[in-house]
Amino acid sequence: MVTVSESRLRRDIETNAAFGSIDASEGHGRTVFVGTKADREARDYLVSRLEDAGMDVRIDAVGNVVGRWAPAAADPNAAPIAAGSHLDSVPEGGIFDGPLGVYAALEAVRAIRDAEVTPHRPIEVVAFTEEEGQRFDPLVGSKVAAGATTPEAALESTDDDGVSLGSALETIGYRGTGRIDASEWDAWLEVHVEQHTELESRGVPVGVVTSITGISRCDVEIEGEANHAGTTSMGERSDSLAAAAEFILDVERAAKEVVLTDSSTAVGTVGSATIRPNGVNVVPGGVELGVDIRDIEGESIEALVDRARKSLARIESEREGIVTELDRYFDVTPVEMSERCRKALYAAADRAEIDVMDLHSGAGHDTMEIGRVTDSGLVFVRSRAGISHNPREWTDWADCVRATRVLAGAIVDLASE
Amino acid sequence: MVTVSESRLRRDIETNAAFGSIDASEGHGRTVFVGTKADREARDYLVSRLEDAGMDVRIDAVGNVVGRWAPAAADPNAAPIAAGSHLDSVPEGGIFDGPLGVYAALEAVRAIRDAEVTPHRPIEVVAFTEEEGQRFDPLVGSKVAAGATTPEAALESTDDDGVSLGSALETIGYRGTGRIDASEWDAWLEVHVEQHTELESRGVPVGVVTSITGISRCDVEIEGEANHAGTTSMGERSDSLAAAAEFILDVERAAKEVVLTDSSTAVGTVGSATIRPNGVNVVPGGVELGVDIRDIEGESIEALVDRARKSLARIESEREGIVTELDRYFDVTPVEMSERCRKALYAAADRAEIDVMDLHSGAGHDTMEIGRVTDSGLVFVRSRAGISHNPREWTDWADCVRATRVLAGAIVDLASE
Repeated sequence: MVTVSESRLRRDIETNAAFGSIDASEGHGRTVFVGTKADREARDYLVSRLEDAGMDVRIDAVGNVVGRWAPAAADPNAAPIAAGSHLDSVPEGGIFDGPLGVYAALEAVRAIRDAEVTPHRPIEVVAFTEEEGQRFDPLVGSKVAAGATTPEAALESTDDDGVSLGSALETIGYRGTGRIDASEWDAWLEVHVEQHTELESRGVPVGVVTSITGISRCDVEIEGEANHAGTTSMGERSDSLAAAAEFILDVERAAKEVVLTDSSTAVGTVGSATIRPNGVNVVPGGVELGVDIRDIEGESIEALVDRARKSLARIESEREGIVTELDRYFDVTPVEMSERCRKALYAAADRAEIDVMDLHSGAGHDTMEIGRVTDSGLVFVRSRAGISHNPREWTDWADCVRATRVLAGAIVDLASE
Repeated sequence: MVTVSESRLRRDIETNAAFGSIDASEGHGRTVFVGTKADREARDYLVSRLEDAGMDVRIDAVGNVVGRWAPAAADPNAAPIAAGSHLDSVPEGGIFDGPLGVYAALEAVRAIRDAEVTPHRPIEVVAFTEEEGQRFDPLVGSKVAAGATTPEAALESTDDDGVSLGSALETIGYRGTGRIDASEWDAWLEVHVEQHTELESRGVPVGVVTSITGISRCDVEIEGEANHAGTTSMGERSDSLAAAAEFILDVERAAKEVVLTDSSTAVGTVGSATIRPNGVNVVPGGVELGVDIRDIEGESIEALVDRARKSLARIESEREGIVTELDRYFDVTPVEMSERCRKALYAAADRAEIDVMDLHSGAGHDTMEIGRVTDSGLVFVRSRAGISHNPREWTDWADCVRATRVLAGAIVDLASE
């Protein structure tokens, strides 16, 4: 029987929370950007805790930290089971988003070892560099590990001040060598706070993610003609904001229809709008809209982008003087979690008598990258009121332990196959 | 026969155009703010031209400039006929907007005197202070003359740097005494560029304004809930931008319906929109909209504001979690031009064989204030492509002369009644 220690897990997360901690009026916040003192402290502590647990630590070229436990009875050449997450944060972020996944993986290893269970495969605990994308591009560490970008390209990418990732990592002593190759892992598991209220509202502590949504983003320009709001009669106008309003409602309607007919997980959002010249007494001349479309079904994303294009064509044909343009500038395809990993997670939850349910993930996470190259599982933990990227982000310690127990059980199963 | 001199009129407007003139890539621009060197130069030149024409000049407390011609045969105690406009401009404005009305009035007086026509009433030529409202409140001079505000309140109003109108006028030597009282005028006439394409498109050089529109402005707040665009399902959203889109289309629809059924001059515009937090991946939490409603019929304005309120009530009832607020923060009622002045303008045009047509004014002008306290007429002159508040603003000199001939003829008629 593998027994997870709440006090050990909690001490690690609380210690980590001190690095880059901020004064928050409510809750516990931290700001940990890649290459800062807080980042170095967080990494140093992780390395020491991995070593305390008897693991060999290596740092790859882009600063990904890996602790490896290869029990004497395991085949050292077998593909390892890996688990982890990230240590960086958004500005004034929470203490669980990222670190919970790293320290749950470490605690799982300690618990497995304490229980004198001997896995057949090595187990690796991983902290990826720059998941949040606050100083450099998001998901840099997991993209390099998944081969989506090269270490060289990643190291040359720069922050707003022109400092490269390579030099930022050198500053804190975490520019290592080589490349962690996630395709060589037998399986990958990540524990993460849900950042939503689905688990809380169902009264279930742990969720097993079925798929991570794909995302398409479009920049839409709607041009009309700016004119005096007093002297331009209703029949003479080419009002770009009224045209944009039709488009906004079309995007919403299309997403709602896809939810009812094809895929309940589809979402379509016009999140941003910039109006020119934006004066109360001027008929708007131009509007720029930001559109975000997501689903776990690639077909739904295509259908919604298509509906957006058709909406613009209709508006152009019906409204005199309106010209539109849609630029689809960002695309990631959906990623399905592996059935093997999901089954292992369900079996572990069953053994530990922990309620779990299926969920999809509307956000990315490192697993979105790793899931493209090896069998992957993503575990969500109930988070209070769904608040995240905020010092008020909170997950009860008992739920952290539940998720870690599910993780540890699944690692044992996967490493014993 | 009163003969207007194109060269005299043109020289005055061109000389005035040099004060505050700017380098424009196209056209002729000027920037004349109240209390600046350019303003002083423009006023000094006007005063000298009024005196050259044998007029007595006085400056009131808020800097309004009045030249008075009281012919020997006229009753000096009779209520005068007044005409004019303003000399200030918007930043990088045109050379006709304002000055044409002032110098057309002066040229009309010179032409009447040259023709040895003797009016029964004194005639006054007026330049009002701060029509455009660039440094202080708009229409300050005409509001004081119409009694809509007191000289004391106007003089204490301040610009963005805390400088009062009183001290700005003192700086240039144009803080006079007393108050021009427009209600003591027998009638008032203003010539102004049309700033629209109605005359040009009909091939008519001069328009006689029937009414100046009323204006209501509303600030509309639509509050929903900001949420992650990826993790918040379509059914869980309170999307303030989608709610705002419905409102924008309702305002447009209502105005178009009023145009068809009640009043063809009604307009309703949502000219500005500010979205919070305005991120492509966030369901919009709040939207602030600026609404401008105008018509020459007060009832249409009330009907449109009422439709706007009803739209918000409907949206609140149909969209979960949406709360709205409408603040009607600005109101001016429509002003009808006097039939007596319009008839005098038509008769003068008829005698001079100049085509004229009825128009309404969708913008304000000093006459909006003066028209509330005495019989008033507003003459529009064809302006190229309707461009104004821009160095490309242009009116052909022949049209300036036509409008001045109509003005002069109407002054003769009104002063001879």
